[in-house]
Amino acid sequence: MLNMTDFIGYLSAFLTTFAFVPQALHSWKTRDLSGVSLPMYSIFSLGVFGWLVYGVLMTCWPIIIANSITFILACVVLYLKITHSN
Amino acid sequence: MLNMTDFIGYLSAFLTTFAFVPQALHSWKTRDLSGVSLPMYSIFSLGVFGWLVYGVLMTCWPIIIANSITFILACVVLYLKITHSN
Repeated sequence: MLNMTDFIGYLSAFLTTFAFVPQALHSWKTRDLSGVSLPMYSIFSLGVFGWLVYGVLMTCWPIIIANSITFILACVVLYLKITHSN
Repeated sequence: MLNMTDFIGYLSAFLTTFAFVPQALHSWKTRDLSGVSLPMYSIFSLGVFGWLVYGVLMTCWPIIIANSITFILACVVLYLKITHSN
């Protein structure tokens, strides 16, 4: 059975992963990337890719799945930032 | 000794934590929060706080330290977003 600590861990993983959905949608729809930091999304995407590699090396599916989703969403924001920076 | 897998894990944790430094600095200096998603930082801050609680319950210092730093940085961006949304 899922204990309280595990539940908080899974809930947190869900929140920090899907938090990037509204950001990616907002950036995609408005194409307003002015307040979004390019260094942040560059470093963050690299870090999330690192977590993905870590998950693969550990054969840990929750880490692989969560970071695959975050990586795609962070890359969407990063791509829009790069292409929309005048 | 630190193996390659652990090294990738620590490096990834470092990158995804400190990625928020340039975003917080950028938002603080420019006060340009127009492209930053309010739902993202609301959900993300809540999720990072959840990770912090998880770290405390597990007495896991790497999780506690990394998420304390991320929580402060995410809250700076969230605070600026709330106070600078016309």
